[in-house]
Amino acid sequence: MSSNRDIDALIDMMARLPGLGPRSARRAVLHLIAKREMQLMPLADLMHKVAATARECLNCGNLGTTDICDICLSEKRANGQICVVEDVADLWAMERGHAFKGRYHVLGGTLSALDQIGPEDLRIPQLVNRIDAESVTEVILALNATVDGQTTAHYIADQLEGRVTLSSLAQGVPIGGELDYLDDGTISAALAARKHL
Amino acid sequence: MSSNRDIDALIDMMARLPGLGPRSARRAVLHLIAKREMQLMPLADLMHKVAATARECLNCGNLGTTDICDICLSEKRANGQICVVEDVADLWAMERGHAFKGRYHVLGGTLSALDQIGPEDLRIPQLVNRIDAESVTEVILALNATVDGQTTAHYIADQLEGRVTLSSLAQGVPIGGELDYLDDGTISAALAARKHL
Ligand SMILES: [Zn+2]
Ligand SMILES: [Zn+2]
Repeated sequence: MSSNRDIDALIDMMARLPGLGPRSARRAVLHLIAKREMQLMPLADLMHKVAATARECLNCGNLGTTDICDICLSEKRANGQICVVEDVADLWAMERGHAFKGRYHVLGGTLSALDQIGPEDLRIPQLVNRIDAESVTEVILALNATVDGQTTAHYIADQLEGRVTLSSLAQGVPIGGELDYLDDGTISAALAARKHL
Repeated sequence: MSSNRDIDALIDMMARLPGLGPRSARRAVLHLIAKREMQLMPLADLMHKVAATARECLNCGNLGTTDICDICLSEKRANGQICVVEDVADLWAMERGHAFKGRYHVLGGTLSALDQIGPEDLRIPQLVNRIDAESVTEVILALNATVDGQTTAHYIADQLEGRVTLSSLAQGVPIGGELDYLDDGTISAALAARKHL
């Protein structure tokens, strides 16, 4: 397309990223080459650094560069609450809401009969273990309002019933909506109005 | 935002690329980290390689990794035609149309009184030199249908009048439209129906 092999390969790789297509990939690559000292090289360096260091928190599944993430390490966040989310993007969305002061548990997906994803494929056993280990008193299920998300919420509620107070995000999460698409205020409102199960 | 400095910095850099925003940058970074061996590391390697090797063709301004680009080196493309474009994205758009068999000349912008861009700031003197050096018989002005694009086309036409056949892309380029946004068929049609000046 550009008549150069490496530049074409770079455009192809960029075009495969979520949210980009061939046209925006071409524009992004031209922009980066035009600013190679200030943008292309620092971006490549940062990608190498993140590729070498990024890892999932062994406790909660959050993404960071240490075995245990900053949120799990922070004593301030040990308030007895755990917010259960499907993936790291949802954890970030909750953090942008600045409303939740406890810790997280990232499942890594949802239960799915169709895709043969069972409790052992997610971080559900680890969640159950954390209840006693971290003296958890409340688990907030912040799962997406999809069929699989709600199936997963019910399964977790069954596992933890009687051991902790269970709640789920309520007001403001539209039917079929995904957390990561919501504005920060909506997430805060949904958290404040959470309904106990 | 992610509670990790390097990951946040990577998201910030990605979000500044044309066509991306904070949300698509977050999704792209999570996607890349999830596929770090197959995508994040190869992408970083390729960026380093392109940053080290990409350069403008000394003859036409096209982007490549050699002093003279493949199109300028190809004897097959020496058909006496030069297509003048504003930037490399427009050259790529022309190439995707597969209709033009000659060589290119990338101006690197347009004349602009407002931005104080004159002929010497573009590659206009080099274009004039190429007419004799490459036995050019026809110059096709494929500039955007903007005020500055058309001003530039008229200026170049004045410079080259009497020395070559001059034409411009005609049918199919909408008023105010930019080449890089057009579908490939439209560009082919505009080239085929080019009008002589
Ligand atoms: Zn953690
Ligand atoms: Zn060239």
